[in-house]
Amino acid sequence: MDMKKKPTILVTNDDGMFAPGIKKLISIAKKFGTVLVVAPDSPQSGQGHAVTLSQPIRLHKVNVFEDVEAYECSGTPVDCVKLAKNVLFKDRNIDLCVSGINHGSNASINILYSGTMSAAMEAALENIDSIGFSHMNYSFDADMNAAESYIEMIIAYVLEKGLSDSRLLNVNIPNLPASEIKGIRICRQSQGRWEEEFQVGTDPRGERYYWLTGKFVAEDEGTDSDLWALRNGYISIVPSKYDLTDHKAIGHLKGLEI
Amino acid sequence: MDMKKKPTILVTNDDGMFAPGIKKLISIAKKFGTVLVVAPDSPQSGQGHAVTLSQPIRLHKVNVFEDVEAYECSGTPVDCVKLAKNVLFKDRNIDLCVSGINHGSNASINILYSGTMSAAMEAALENIDSIGFSHMNYSFDADMNAAESYIEMIIAYVLEKGLSDSRLLNVNIPNLPASEIKGIRICRQSQGRWEEEFQVGTDPRGERYYWLTGKFVAEDEGTDSDLWALRNGYISIVPSKYDLTDHKAIGHLKGLEI
Repeated sequence: MDMKKKPTILVTNDDGMFAPGIKKLISIAKKFGTVLVVAPDSPQSGQGHAVTLSQPIRLHKVNVFEDVEAYECSGTPVDCVKLAKNVLFKDRNIDLCVSGINHGSNASINILYSGTMSAAMEAALENIDSIGFSHMNYSFDADMNAAESYIEMIIAYVLEKGLSDSRLLNVNIPNLPASEIKGIRICRQSQGRWEEEFQVGTDPRGERYYWLTGKFVAEDEGTDSDLWALRNGYISIVPSKYDLTDHKAIGHLKGLEI
Repeated sequence: MDMKKKPTILVTNDDGMFAPGIKKLISIAKKFGTVLVVAPDSPQSGQGHAVTLSQPIRLHKVNVFEDVEAYECSGTPVDCVKLAKNVLFKDRNIDLCVSGINHGSNASINILYSGTMSAAMEAALENIDSIGFSHMNYSFDADMNAAESYIEMIIAYVLEKGLSDSRLLNVNIPNLPASEIKGIRICRQSQGRWEEEFQVGTDPRGERYYWLTGKFVAEDEGTDSDLWALRNGYISIVPSKYDLTDHKAIGHLKGLEI
């Protein structure tokens, strides 16, 4: 893009407007240009690429961030991006979408479940360069200052050079003080899986319920993978895409054609 | 798999237990082996890969289908698969998961939003060969008999040969009578996008609301793509995966490493 013109940056997340992560991301984005915010009005972790079809969605303008036009949205993170692009800011050119900073990792297969990353992917589908940022500390007290200079560097790079093809970066930040972050690695998505356990309980009316919990298990820590980078003190960047075709498998299946 | 042993097939969907599509899929699956069903207790279209984190989930055993153990689940399609694998049938070996038959297309980028396909992908993540079936007629009156022999053929192939690597097929069926279905094509996912429009209205309390609508626009109909196959009278099969890495972009971004 033309760096002489101030860029317009859309900020969103899945933790809602009052999460410290989005506050930090907005403060960083403001250094580059005009910031617009559309974020969910309630926590939307684990919403993946859900959209709201069977209900109406509400938008409310809020004055939470100085010099920033911001809206709360009753829908999912993907809804936020759709409404930003097609309703609220349909006459404006959005140069970049940044989503996060998520409180918790979205490395490996967690990109699939993540509202943060699905919002970023939706912007990429709308042809907007897009970056999802996630911090490996799940707490709202996470110290996100350590990563600030790196986040700035990544945004500056994308604004200057643009993203090719799939227009989407999945950035994860290790939970380390600044002095221990070793740098940035461009990675592929690691294999991993959730070992699910459900907490089983009985509610006050005597009905049984199940509550999702579990443990993430890394199944692959090759030195080119995001989990390896994070475990070794690096910020991981996985360029990601929405074409899910398994091209390798196409040949194997030709026997099914009739 | 050993074809002498009767396979166990998990059936799920995103339209709920009373959709004609799941009834048809169960009747087909029963020809092959033991059928287990876990499906949402309400329509979950557009839920993508959402999981239920902030609420408990309920399961209720239902007697809807003859000789079939079936449960209604208050969660998302992905929750259904997680509960099937890790709670309800954790001591059983599931040979195949089939999801659908969805009432509506999940070709092209619609795989991202689809609860049907996310349920199938979750099974693939759990190392279960998995097939999502979708019919391009959105109506509950869709005539799904035309595709029956093809669905049988695809299930038989997967049970016999197994699926490599990513273990996931996205099968879409054109809305045509049997005599006009030309065959099966193995395809890649087409480029496409939604041109969103939101219906804007005012509710009975005078508050404005937005309701998602819009039109799908094909942006690529190469003869190897799913949209081409469907438009030309073929059933499309896209082998799909959950590794979203854009490997081509990794090289371009090396300048960001520090």
